[in-house]
Parts: sequence; C-alpha cells; structure tokens
Amino acid sequence: MLLKKTVLVAAMLLSTSLLSTTTIAGSEIALLIDMLRDNGTVSEEQYQRLQAELKQIQNQAQNQNPIQVEPPFHATQTVKPIVVKATSDKFTAQLGGRLQIDAASYSGEPKMGNGTEVRRAYLTLKGTLSPDWAYRFQYNFADTGEDGKGILDAFVAYQGMDDFDVTVGHFKAPFTLHEATSDNFVTFTERASVAAFSPGRQIGAMISDSNDNRTWAIGAFGESVSQHGGEEDEAFGLSSRATWSPLNQPRQVLHLGLGMNYQQTGSLDTVRYKQQAETHVAGVNLVDTGVINQAENVLKLGAEFAGVWGPFATQIEYVSTSVNRNKVDDVHFDGWYAETSYFLTGESRHYSQGHFARTKPLKQVGKGGLGAWQLALRYSELDLNDGAILGGETEAVTLGLNWFPTSALRFSANYVDVLAVDGGPNADLTPRLFQVRSQWSF
Amino acid sequence: MLLKKTVLVAAMLLSTSLLSTTTIAGSEIALLIDMLRDNGTVSEEQYQRLQAELKQIQNQAQNQNPIQVEPPFHATQTVKPIVVKATSDKFTAQLGGRLQIDAASYSGEPKMGNGTEVRRAYLTLKGTLSPDWAYRFQYNFADTGEDGKGILDAFVAYQGMDDFDVTVGHFKAPFTLHEATSDNFVTFTERASVAAFSPGRQIGAMISDSNDNRTWAIGAFGESVSQHGGEEDEAFGLSSRATWSPLNQPRQVLHLGLGMNYQQTGSLDTVRYKQQAETHVAGVNLVDTGVINQAENVLKLGAEFAGVWGPFATQIEYVSTSVNRNKVDDVHFDGWYAETSYFLTGESRHYSQGHFARTKPLKQVGKGGLGAWQLALRYSELDLNDGAILGGETEAVTLGLNWFPTSALRFSANYVDVLAVDGGPNADLTPRLFQVRSQWSF
Amino acid sequence: MLLKKTVLVAAMLLSTSLLSTTTIAGSEIALLIDMLRDNGTVSEEQYQRLQAELKQIQNQAQNQNPIQVEPPFHATQTVKPIVVKATSDKFTAQLGGRLQIDAASYSGEPKMGNGTEVRRAYLTLKGTLSPDWAYRFQYNFADTGEDGKGILDAFVAYQGMDDFDVTVGHFKAPFTLHEATSDNFVTFTERASVAAFSPGRQIGAMISDSNDNRTWAIGAFGESVSQHGGEEDEAFGLSSRATWSPLNQPRQVLHLGLGMNYQQTGSLDTVRYKQQAETHVAGVNLVDTGVINQAENVLKLGAEFAGVWGPFATQIEYVSTSVNRNKVDDVHFDGWYAETSYFLTGESRHYSQGHFARTKPLKQVGKGGLGAWQLALRYSELDLNDGAILGGETEAVTLGLNWFPTSALRFSANYVDVLAVDGGPNADLTPRLFQVRSQWSF
Repeated sequence: MLLKKTVLVAAMLLSTSLLSTTTIAGSEIALLIDMLRDNGTVSEEQYQRLQAELKQIQNQAQNQNPIQVEPPFHATQTVKPIVVKATSDKFTAQLGGRLQIDAASYSGEPKMGNGTEVRRAYLTLKGTLSPDWAYRFQYNFADTGEDGKGILDAFVAYQGMDDFDVTVGHFKAPFTLHEATSDNFVTFTERASVAAFSPGRQIGAMISDSNDNRTWAIGAFGESVSQHGGEEDEAFGLSSRATWSPLNQPRQVLHLGLGMNYQQTGSLDTVRYKQQAETHVAGVNLVDTGVINQAENVLKLGAEFAGVWGPFATQIEYVSTSVNRNKVDDVHFDGWYAETSYFLTGESRHYSQGHFARTKPLKQVGKGGLGAWQLALRYSELDLNDGAILGGETEAVTLGLNWFPTSALRFSANYVDVLAVDGGPNADLTPRLFQVRSQWSF
Repeated sequence: MLLKKTVLVAAMLLSTSLLSTTTIAGSEIALLIDMLRDNGTVSEEQYQRLQAELKQIQNQAQNQNPIQVEPPFHATQTVKPIVVKATSDKFTAQLGGRLQIDAASYSGEPKMGNGTEVRRAYLTLKGTLSPDWAYRFQYNFADTGEDGKGILDAFVAYQGMDDFDVTVGHFKAPFTLHEATSDNFVTFTERASVAAFSPGRQIGAMISDSNDNRTWAIGAFGESVSQHGGEEDEAFGLSSRATWSPLNQPRQVLHLGLGMNYQQTGSLDTVRYKQQAETHVAGVNLVDTGVINQAENVLKLGAEFAGVWGPFATQIEYVSTSVNRNKVDDVHFDGWYAETSYFLTGESRHYSQGHFARTKPLKQVGKGGLGAWQLALRYSELDLNDGAILGGETEAVTLGLNWFPTSALRFSANYVDVLAVDGGPNADLTPRLFQVRSQWSF
Repeated sequence: MLLKKTVLVAAMLLSTSLLSTTTIAGSEIALLIDMLRDNGTVSEEQYQRLQAELKQIQNQAQNQNPIQVEPPFHATQTVKPIVVKATSDKFTAQLGGRLQIDAASYSGEPKMGNGTEVRRAYLTLKGTLSPDWAYRFQYNFADTGEDGKGILDAFVAYQGMDDFDVTVGHFKAPFTLHEATSDNFVTFTERASVAAFSPGRQIGAMISDSNDNRTWAIGAFGESVSQHGGEEDEAFGLSSRATWSPLNQPRQVLHLGLGMNYQQTGSLDTVRYKQQAETHVAGVNLVDTGVINQAENVLKLGAEFAGVWGPFATQIEYVSTSVNRNKVDDVHFDGWYAETSYFLTGESRHYSQGHFARTKPLKQVGKGGLGAWQLALRYSELDLNDGAILGGETEAVTLGLNWFPTSALRFSANYVDVLAVDGGPNADLTPRLFQVRSQWSF
C-alpha cells in the first residue's frame, strides 16, 4: 500500500516533467501506468485517477508555452522565444542593440546650432554557425549623414586554427586603440580629434590572433561597403596592429601598441581630412584640409599607451599621416591625445584583448547602489597644416562625467573647450560646448 | 521484484527529465543507479541496462536543443532561440513586428492613381534593462516618402519612482487620443484629416504618470530625428496631455482628455499643413496651405471625448492650431472628427491608460469562430482656410469594416466620400475612394 | 529502509525537474514530502533534509534563467531569449540571416573595375500567427544601387484550406525555376543572363498549392513596393507557374515547369532590359536595350527542365519575352541556359516543392569531414536584338566551384568567359572575370 502510494505520487510527479519533455515522455508514462495496473501495484480506481491526471497534465502541456520566460511587461501575457533554424549543435544566435541620444549646446565661434541627435542606433546579430565559424552582422539605423546609416560589421570568421583566426567581410581595419574600443566604451562622448585619420570599416580579409598578453592583426582591404565601382578598380589597402600587455590583471593593466595603415587613393587621387570640435550634433567641421589632389597613397603610423591602476586609467595615442603625392610635395599631418579617468565609486576600467570593454558597476542602481561614476579629462591635438595645405591645427581639452546606473546604461556629460585653432577655415575661432548623451546597449 | 521493476522504470522516466535539466541532474541519476546496484535492488544485468539507457539519453540531451519549441515550419528541423546578453536578472528583450499592405481605388477629382503600397513595415525591440529601466527601439522599413522610412520610437525610460516616469529619446509628443492610439488599433485605415496637426515624434525628455483613471504627460522637445542642424539652433517645443477616465471597466469606458502643444518654427520661420483624402496610397494632397512664411511659433489645443458601451464605441476630438506670425496677421486653423463603431460579434473596444489597444476576438478563426467583425462610421472636418491663407476646408465621411480573424490579424475595407472641399488647390473637387488593408502585428 | 532511500532519492531527483516546471510542480513536491513523513516512510530528520533540499532547489530555480542556452561567446555570461508576445498557441517567430560578400577581378573589354561588394545582407522574420496563418518579412540591408536595399518578402498567407493557399503582400511573382530558387541555393554566384527578364517582387495576391509531385501558383500584381503613385494608376500584371515532378526522391528528381508572366507598362509606356556579364561587383551592363518607348505590355513565357541523379544535377530554362508596342513593330527577345553540376563529395542537390533548396554536407568540416564540394558548368545566352532594338546578344560559359563547409556556409569561385557579344553598346567585346563569394545563411 505504501509502495502503491509512493509509485502513484511518483508517477504524478513524473508526469509533470511532461511539460518540458512532452515529445518523448508521453508514451513511457502511459506504459508505466499500464504496467502498474497489469501487475496489480495500483488498483483499477487508482489507474483511472492516474489516467485522468495524465490527460489533464498533457492538456496543460499542450496549451502551454514550454518556455517559461519572465514576461517583459505584463505578468499575464504569453510570450514565446524567437528561434532560428540551427545549422549545427553549436549554432548560436545573439541579438544586440545600442542607442545613443545626444543633445548639445554651443557657444563662441564658429556658429554651431544647439540641438539633438540620435547619434547611433545599432542592431547586431552574431553567433557561431558551428564550433569554429563565427558570424556577425551589425547595422546603424541612425541617419546622421555621411558617417551614419548603413552596414557596419558584416563578416564570417574561421576560428578553428591554433595559430590565427581568419576574418572575411566588412569590418574595422585594425588601427589604433580608440578605434578598437567600441564607441559604447570610449571614455568621452566623441573620440579625440585624431580620429580624423581612422580608416573605418572596409571589405577585406584579415588574419589575427590574441592571448592575454598580446594581440596582432593584419589585413588586406578594398573600399568601404558601397555602390558599384563601375569602370574603375577599387583602391587597395593594408592595415595592421600589434599590442602588448605585459601586465594584464583585473585592476592593473599596462598596454603598448603599434599600428600601420596603408591606403591607395583610388582613381580619384584625392584625400580629405576634417574634424568637428569633438562633437557631432551640429555637424560643423572645425578643421578641414579640403580636397587634396594628386594624392597617390597614404601611410599612417600609430603608437598607443594605456594603463589601469585600480580606479585610475590613462590612455595616450599618437597618429602620423603621410600623404604621398604625385609631382607635388608630400604632406604630413599628425595628432595625439592623452586622457585620464577615475572611478569615484571604485570600479576599474575593463581591458580585454587589446581594447577597453564594458564597465560593470560594483553596486548598480536598484540594488542599493549608486551605479558607477567616472570623472575624466582629455587633452587632444590635431594638426592638418603642412606645406600648401592649411586645414588648421586644433587643441582642445575635455572634461567628462559618466554615470553607469547598470552595465547596460550610460549617461554622459562632456564639456569641450577648444583652446586654439591655428590656420584653416576657422582660424582663431575657439568654440566651447556642452554635450550630454543617454545610452543603452547590450 | 516488483519494487525493482518500479524503480527501474521510474529511473528511466526520471532520466528523461535530463533533457530539460541536463546540467544538474546527471550526477544524481548516476548516483541513484549506483546506490540501487550496491544495495541489491537492481541486478548487475539491470544495472548495465540502466547505464546504457542513461548514456543514450545523455547523448540525446547533448545533441539536442535544450529548448523544445514548436518548430515554425517543419516538424523535423532543430531550432534554437535567439538570445541576448542579460544585463541584470530582470533584463528582458521582446521583438515585435507589424506589416500593413494597402490597395486603393479612386474616383472623381483630383486625379489619384489606383495602386498598392506597403504602408508600414515595423520591427520593434523593447524590454527592461533592469527592474526600473525600460528601453524601446522601433524602425519603419517602408519607404513611402516623407513620412515613411526611419527611426520611430528610440528611448530609455526610468520607471522606478512613485510619482512619475522619465522618458528620454525619440518618441511621440503627447497630444490627442488618435495619436496616442497605435495605427494598429485606430478604427479606420487612416486617421482623421485633423491628423494634419499631429506633432509626430521628436527628440526630447518627458515626465508622465498613469493609473486606471487618469494619465498625464509633459515633455520638452527638439526636432525630429534628422540630419545635422549645421549653424542653426533647433526649434524648441513643449507638449502635454492629460486624460481622465471616470469610468474604466472592461466593457464600459468614459474618457475625457485635453492636450496642448507649442512648437517654435526654427530658423526657417515657416510652417505648412496639408492632408490627403484620408488615404495614403496615391499620395495626393487634397488640402494644402503651402508654405506659410513669417511664422514664429504654433500653439495647438486638443479636446478629446471617448466612450465604450459593450460592442459600441464612440470617439470625438477637436484640435485648434494657431500660427503666431511676425508682422502679419496670425492664422488659425482647426479640425475635428466624430466616429462610432460596433462589434457585430460582441467584442468591446479595448481601452488602457489613455488610449485604445488591441482587439481580441471572442472566438478566433481556426477555433470554431468567425473572428471579430466591426462596423464603423466617421465624419471629419479640417479647415485650413484663414485670412490670406487658403489651404482648403474639407469634409468627409468614412464607412469602415474591420475583420480580426485573430488578435494578430486585421483586414480592413474603408469607403471614403469627400463631401466638400471649399477653397484651396482642389476647391470643389470631391473624390471618393475604396481602400483595403491586410495587416499583421505582434 | 531500502524503499525509504529509494523514495528519498527519487524525490530529490524529481525536485530537480522543478527547474523546468517550477510553476506547477512546487505544490506536488511539498505534498509528497508531507505524505511520506505522515505515513512514516521518511523519518523526521530525512523530512528536514528533504525540505531543505527543496527550498534550495526552488531558490536556484528562481534565480536562474529557465532556459539553458549554450552561451554564444563566453561560458560565464548570462543570456536570455528574445521573446515575442504570442498571439495564439501556435504562434511562432523565426529569425533568419544571410550575408554574401563578393570580390571580383575583370579582364578584357568593356572596362570593369576590380573590387569588392556586400552583395546581399538579409534579415528575415517569419512564422505562424495561428495554425493557418503564416507571415514573413525580409529586408535587404545591402545598398548596391537599383536592385539593392529595401523590402523583399512582406506578406501574410492563409494556409487553412485544402485546395490552395492565399498569399497577400509583397513577394516574388511566380516565374521560372531559377527565380523560385533562393539566391542562397542557385548553383553559381549570379543567375544566368536570362534573369534580365525576371519580374521580381511586386505587391499582389496569389493562390497556390503544392504536393510532392506538382506545384501551381497564379497571382495578380501591382507594382513593386515603392513611392507614391501620384496621379497615375499602377500597372497591372499577372503571373503564373506550374511544375510537375514525376520523379521526386531524395537523390532522384525529374522536374518540368511552365511559366507565364503578363505585365502592363504603366503610364510611362516604356520597358528596358539589360544585363551584366553574370557578375554584380562592377555594375557595368554588357547588353542593354536602352529605354523602349511605345510599349503597351509584355508577355513572357518560360519552360523549365531539371534533373537530379545522385551527385549529378542538371537544369535548363528558356524564357521568351514579347513587348507589345503601340503603332510600331512589336519586339521579341529571349534567352536560355543549361547547367550541370556534380558533388565531388557525394551529396545530392536538394529539391523541394518546385525549386532547389539547401545543401547539407554528408560530413561537415569540424566533424571529421571536408564539407561538400561541388563542380558546375553553365552555358547561357541572352538575345536583346530584335528589329530596330539592338540591345546585344551575349553568350557566356561559367565554370564554378562551391564549397559548403557546413550547411550554413558557402564559399564559391566562378570563372565567367563571355564567348560573344553581337550588337548592342558593347558589340564584339568579350570580357572574362573571376569572382569569389563568402556566404553565411540560416
């Protein structure tokens, strides 16, 4: 009798597991009940009760979503997961999102209009097709003009070899620490003015490798994702970066890096470098070389230093850009910045594989904490004057405050004071600006 | 022996639950089998069978997707969920989609081309980053011209305070009931002609609160998500809406509302109001003020009334628009509509927090029902004539039929008869049109 | 005592199933433990242990994501599924993605620029709203010019009738085998030159049916998803296709098909047919009729043959296009291709419901295999010369190699030799080209 009760209750319990294993357990449960009736363990009456119980649970299982996810908004609504056809055991698909909403206020000359902007709105789909093959697609929906809307990352990577990975598609040419660091995680709302030399994303193929103490990458690139080339060959480029982190611990990092980027200018034989006042809302260029003709190719060299000591972090980069011109003198531009930051709430800047990554507050808002608060200071220079080219040389200092209520949220306020502009279209004009950003990303 | 069989079968059954609990149950099952062998409950032969069974099931579990989702198309294919990196325990991510396909046929003057259109194609990603922080991103992929493709909602909201929520980003300025109601759920295929005055979505910050019997919202806004502002400051705006529903029960609602919207005109000092004949396929404007110069700012006021009595619903709104002009006479426009609808199949219009929401058929198609059938009638006026501005005044009546086979599906047919057009570019032309829509949304 | 142990361990095991069935099993487990204590099966001490065990497991279950997905990148991070509000029991949502990255090198005349291209970047959302209603939305993010970026599939389909399905929205007009086959699965990187006559996707309504041995579809269409039509009516079209596969087994297929497509030319009364050299990177048209005026409508007829014999497959199509012109002579164009392919690794081309589908390698890379390797050869002709219209006639042969490391990945290399171009803008110019593609799709 005791046994019967035990078996009966056990069968009831087991049948609840139907909810997660409906497809395979149904017949075994029925078999068990039949067996128990046949050998007399359960009486006919108990058998009927078991059958009724089983039917009821099966009905529940059919009417119920097998996945019990916390409902996003209302506790009563039914939700189901978005799925993908798996191409292998190790197939995975992950969605990411990012939104940056900016507002900026300007004073001084040149005139820049106060305003607002959806700075970036990204969706990302990434994962692994099978154990050794990774994929990634990322799109910017924010239509902010020439550097806005369009395909960002779009590649496939083979990661099955010991010595290096191979990546093919559209992705960032490896060059400089502040480009390798996502705009989610750079210290200020805009990268330093020397970002005027960043090669950006192009279609190409790259080999790369990394471990805890070094990374290297070298790739061959065509042009950016774009319209048809028509009759002209695309310009060809090479980019490479190597980093060394002799010290790489959670709260102590020493990072050194070198980069080289070579780019043909294509059939137009032109290049142009320009930069805003470390802001993006107004869209006004502070320095601008205009179109430089008779340019055959460009060679850029970059040097990187960064360090993390507990809540302190510092980062210094220098980039030199040489435009090799045909029949006229070559021109050389350069720029650099130094920044330092301090977490008032004790966090430490997160470094991984040659770049900085997501900040996790020690105590997030909503769990008894204030989130992470970070103060930061940056000095930057960009020199676009050389020979006959007078694009302007600018110096600026930026004071920044970042608040991370949780690891997914960031609110930033930046005050930028342009100290000097020598030459160029806005010579001797030194604007000041205040910019705030609301950001979520995951 | 009976016990042995029971335990054996029970262990088999239990092991099937591995499929959903592989990570934790594996060792316990092995332990049980070992224990049963050690104390003689199962023979050595049975033990071997159990071990083989267990290994087989574990292999199945490893090769199998741990989530048993109903396969979308073919019963045999393996599917996996799309995942996101969770930023907190309460992190949620929900995807929504919406598609509206229209076809329209026109008669009378002005000439409008019969045709088809993808009216709206939205994807939405929304959820909570942590318990108190909500996010939302919504994009319209349908390229239908000036009011088409682009970012819709893009915001972050803090919902952790008792008194009000704070929303920052790009979203609808709070104004009027028919704008607060999603185009999924408005009664007719197009909103009434007075929607010409709708402020639409802008970048801003808003505080708001709601309970069962009232809602209020007030926000400060810049311009719509858009290109760089260049040298000019963005125009500034304020928008606010308050609603009161003294009666708010599932099938009985009384709703009253007031709205105020103030908008500077920006550096261009112009405004323009225009409207199609409550259709969108042809894209021909029936009334149009043209560009109104010397406009400094615009003040709009709105009054709302709505009621639900079982299957009946009614809704009346009036909007007044005053354009404050510099050195010339101000101009005043206005418009209003009254609509009533009746569910032939007994449903009641769903009202929630100051707007109407999704209709759920009492008996959906495919489950022995006909879905929900709704008849609707609307009268609307829009007056764009004042002083020297002759945009035209239009009156129209619309007869609508909606069929909701399920809550995700809607098929609509609208017949619009423009009763009169006084003044403006199409004076005395009174077109008629028939429009159908196929819609899915979730 | 033995029984007690057994029950105790069984209860522990059962309680682990809580992780997947928290919502319903909690009370039964507690009930079982209480019962066992009450009837003396377990001692008070064992009861306390069970209670503690139960509490601990319940806490785990609460703190744990109920879905244990393999983390896409780092084993330690928490992931959650993206969900949707389910509109019915049978609601499903599935995401798909596709990326094609091309590089091409050209020789001979006309001049075409070597280069790279993101050929296609698709996201797809599809599923069932309820048992009988299917939906699909697909968008191309690759901005490659006129045939690029924009809405692809966008429809709702009713599949609840025995005799046929009804589809309403924006989708491919049914015509030809190579259009019915996804660009993921066509044999070469670009379809044969006769694709110049493909009607593409349009807004319309279609009825269709299929079984293992035949498919048929007929639809009425307006124009492609597009801007407002303004004053002019949209052009109207009809398209239909029927296929017969008297032999349809996994490795043996015989396919025959016929198609008819009728299209009015709309208010412009023009048509134009043009084609590149079975490549897309450079975007240069090899043959081109230019704008053909006084065109009233176009009638296209297509004939299809395909066969699969184990690793061999062959496919032949012919399309005739008659432009019915007003007051001048009608013109007739046509084209055809024949292709054959062979899987070196023994796979067989996958055929289903009137078109070819995804290749699954017998042994994928990473599981001890080489993936699937396929060799292919194609001859194609396109004749755009007739009467006064000299668009050019082109013949080309293509040699292709496809490597499918897994079913989600494809790397293709194509060598195209244009044998002859008679007449047209590039008369007697015969370029050669080499094109490679990296593709992932799921």
